[in-house]
Amino acid sequence: MRNHSVSKQTIRRLPTYLSFLKDVQKKNIKNISAVTIAEAMKLNEVQVRKDLASVSKGGKPKIGYVIDSLITELENFLGYDTTDYAVLVGAGNLGSALTGYKGFDEFGLEIIAAFDNCEDVVGKEIRGKPVYPISKLPEVCREHDIKIGIITVPGAAAQEVCDELINAGIKAIWNFASVHLSVPEGVLVQNENMAYSLAALSLHLAEQMQKIEEEKKEK
Amino acid sequence: MRNHSVSKQTIRRLPTYLSFLKDVQKKNIKNISAVTIAEAMKLNEVQVRKDLASVSKGGKPKIGYVIDSLITELENFLGYDTTDYAVLVGAGNLGSALTGYKGFDEFGLEIIAAFDNCEDVVGKEIRGKPVYPISKLPEVCREHDIKIGIITVPGAAAQEVCDELINAGIKAIWNFASVHLSVPEGVLVQNENMAYSLAALSLHLAEQMQKIEEEKKEK
Repeated sequence: MRNHSVSKQTIRRLPTYLSFLKDVQKKNIKNISAVTIAEAMKLNEVQVRKDLASVSKGGKPKIGYVIDSLITELENFLGYDTTDYAVLVGAGNLGSALTGYKGFDEFGLEIIAAFDNCEDVVGKEIRGKPVYPISKLPEVCREHDIKIGIITVPGAAAQEVCDELINAGIKAIWNFASVHLSVPEGVLVQNENMAYSLAALSLHLAEQMQKIEEEKKEK
Repeated sequence: MRNHSVSKQTIRRLPTYLSFLKDVQKKNIKNISAVTIAEAMKLNEVQVRKDLASVSKGGKPKIGYVIDSLITELENFLGYDTTDYAVLVGAGNLGSALTGYKGFDEFGLEIIAAFDNCEDVVGKEIRGKPVYPISKLPEVCREHDIKIGIITVPGAAAQEVCDELINAGIKAIWNFASVHLSVPEGVLVQNENMAYSLAALSLHLAEQMQKIEEEKKEK
């Protein structure tokens, strides 16, 4: 049984612990202390113990955590050890890239099909995954008992697609459209705001360039 | 000149306004009021006026905002109207998908080359973008005056790659490795934690399924 009372901040750090521990495991190291993890990951030791306590019974005195077990416990908590199946709506550039992306395996996600209304893509395949018309959404979701929907349509169409996904039984939405989605209670929307990330990078660069210009003028 | 004193929260919302306004523009509507924007985007009207005041001189009484101008102002502020060039390190599944992704144009980002140390990919191309050995990083970055680096290597290699990018003159890093990166002052790290998103979706589903089970038992 997974413990759901863990804070968002802790959940945010857990994939980082997992990634770090997998790297250590490759070096054939069997045990690790909270102190070593804290130093390597530049975190506070108390924090590390607290975070890991939410997924593991904890390390043993003088031995520390057993790395293999801790990895299993983390993967189990994060749901990476079991596969969640998903559908994706919007087989444009981003949607096709995500549908064809092989890296989701590791995180326990498999996109079984993409949906679109554009004649150019419907009926085709993206790396072996079928692209269906959006009208087939309820049928496919119900048949395969799909609970995760990924939205990669343009902003204007996102709410309508979201409503259709919910009607088809979807309980968790991964939203790549940069719009706010309204959903009923019990449905989670996880927003992936890549547009914001790109704006933040660009703004930082502009700021840095401005500083350099100002420093030049001062000299 | 871009105004850099705008809050992160506002910057997070700006791409959403832009996306919404582009949809409205397609319907051949010329002007829009803050009230209409607020209602459509489910935001507070005061918030909308405040957010848009950071990029625009504002709407006119009875006319509202001129949509074309507001779009230009938003794109200008977010840096989407000028192209920032970037390099990517780690041409695995995710790195290849991002390098070949055509959708970054719209956000003013172009990845000019990918770097990797794996013999299987070095020397090849991803949708016309060259893949170089990591040793060529300083040369390529300096030659093209690249300031943005994208990290898609495994966690264990991320800090080393980050250091090499900074040595090559990079000022902004888009980090897809789920590890903490240490950087000197003046360098921005923008973390893209997809592992967290996937964990959040999976945890929510597990929680929902548990609730349904409990409700069944109660009946």
